[in-house]
This record gives sequence, C-alpha cells and structure tokens, in this order.
Amino acid sequence: MGAGVASAPPRGREERLRDTRRRLETDVDLWVATSGSQDGVHLVPLSYLWDGSVFLISTPRASVTGRNLLGDGRVRLSLGTTRDVVIVDGAAEPVDTAELGDERRAAFATRTGFDPSGIAEPYQYFVIRPRRILAWREANELRGRVLMRDGSWLD
Amino acid sequence: MGAGVASAPPRGREERLRDTRRRLETDVDLWVATSGSQDGVHLVPLSYLWDGSVFLISTPRASVTGRNLLGDGRVRLSLGTTRDVVIVDGAAEPVDTAELGDERRAAFATRTGFDPSGIAEPYQYFVIRPRRILAWREANELRGRVLMRDGSWLD
Repeated sequence: MGAGVASAPPRGREERLRDTRRRLETDVDLWVATSGSQDGVHLVPLSYLWDGSVFLISTPRASVTGRNLLGDGRVRLSLGTTRDVVIVDGAAEPVDTAELGDERRAAFATRTGFDPSGIAEPYQYFVIRPRRILAWREANELRGRVLMRDGSWLD
Repeated sequence: MGAGVASAPPRGREERLRDTRRRLETDVDLWVATSGSQDGVHLVPLSYLWDGSVFLISTPRASVTGRNLLGDGRVRLSLGTTRDVVIVDGAAEPVDTAELGDERRAAFATRTGFDPSGIAEPYQYFVIRPRRILAWREANELRGRVLMRDGSWLD
C-alpha cells in the first residue's frame, strides 16, 4: 500500500462491520485464491451468493479452482478494491446440486445471472464458510482490521 | 462471471494488448496470490513498479507473502476489477537492496509512495517475471484472453 495519498481517518469497528456486511450482501463478484500440488497457486474472479453466513460459488469441476478446492478446501477470498479491501479466509466444501435444493440454486442463479445447470460442462458448487474476515482501506486502518476470528464476528 | 449484464462486443487482440500494457504502466496496486506449505494460500494487495518487462514489489520478509515467495516463487497477480481483469502468472525472485541499485529503489518509492528502507521491519524486494498474461472483461472475452505465453507477448 502506498502512503502517498492523504488518508481519511480510520473507521472504527462498528463502521467497518457495517461497511463489510453491506459489501458481502451487495457485491456480485469476488476474487478466489486457491492452491494445489499440481497447479500451484491460482486466482480467478467468480460470482457468489452470500446468505448471511456462508458464500456459495460454482465453477467447472475440471477447472484449476475446482480441482484445487476438491483437493484442499482452504481458500482466501477478496472483495472490493486494493484501497477498500475485504479479505476472507475460509474453508470450501463441495455440495451436490440435489443437496443444495431448488430454492438455493434459484437464488444463486438470480444473484449471479448464471445457472450452471444449463451448461453441458460439469460444474461444482462449493459452500465457503468464513473463518476470518479482515477489512481495511489505507495503511492507517491495518490496526483493527480483524472483524471475524474463528468464525465469529467481533461485534 | 455473471451473464446478466448486456456485454459490449469482445475486444480484439490489438485493443486488449494496448489496454493491458496501459494498465500495467498506470495502475499502482495489484493483488498478489501465493502459497506455502505452512500457511496455505494467501492473497494481499501490494503496490508495484512495472518497468516494461518485470514487476517489482516489496513486502516484509516475515509476512506470509514474503515467506511464501521465498519458499516457492510461483505467483499469480491480478489487476483491475472482476469485470475488467488482467491476470499474470509469474516467477518471483528475491533481490537484495544493493543489487537493485539506487535508481530503481528511488523509482519504486516514487511510484508506490512507499520506501521500505525507511522502515525498521526487514523488507524484501522481489522481481516478478511474467510468464503468462490474460485479459478479459465479460464471458464473451474468455476466448482470446491469452496475451502472453512462455514470457512472450502475442503481438
């Protein structure tokens, strides 16, 4: 992070929690970072559905992200810009389409504008449970950036 | 990626190359994805200097990104937004401050607004050489997204 730009005063925890929850609810895409023994580190943008406690994503089973997450569920997500960051460390678990249920699949398709059931290529849904959430804008917000620890919001 | 938004027609290669090079030259921050056996996958925003062929970044030696890159130089970078993406697969190599030279250190500090030599915590510079560069906006630009292969621009 550069220090060249005059920064606004740092937000307190309450404001960060509010901004962060609003972003999780209103954004459509996030960055998904995964790693695997075969392909190494990977990073792609994907659309998601946030239900207030977990993220739902869908990606081709055979994609690098799909293979990585099936091998090692540890995932790091980011939302926002490099100067208004939300970062999530979480655990991804594959979910069968049947297990997911019609309502949730429809909610995902509505939210993302994308329904993997209409595609010939086999897709895999993953539920991502956040364990740790961080949020900051500039360097003066690095202190106090932890908003969730061990899966619990610090509010 | 969602398909809900009406998309502009896909850019041709020439336009993508021009847009991508301009972004590399003008942006200040990028996302850096790394992985390591101890900490798993990691993702942070960092400021960078692009000299036309390699990226220069700097991060605390003891940070997760620093440790990961010292252990495994494979790195994936992203610039732009989730709907106007530039993605770089590259190899990071640590560079000593002396080896880097005064001119390059000064250029880095000017570009990023950040001079690690003024900080007590030990920082490490890394040079990242791109091997593969991709760029796309919406789903209709996935075809033709490869702009660099094996370190050579496809122009």
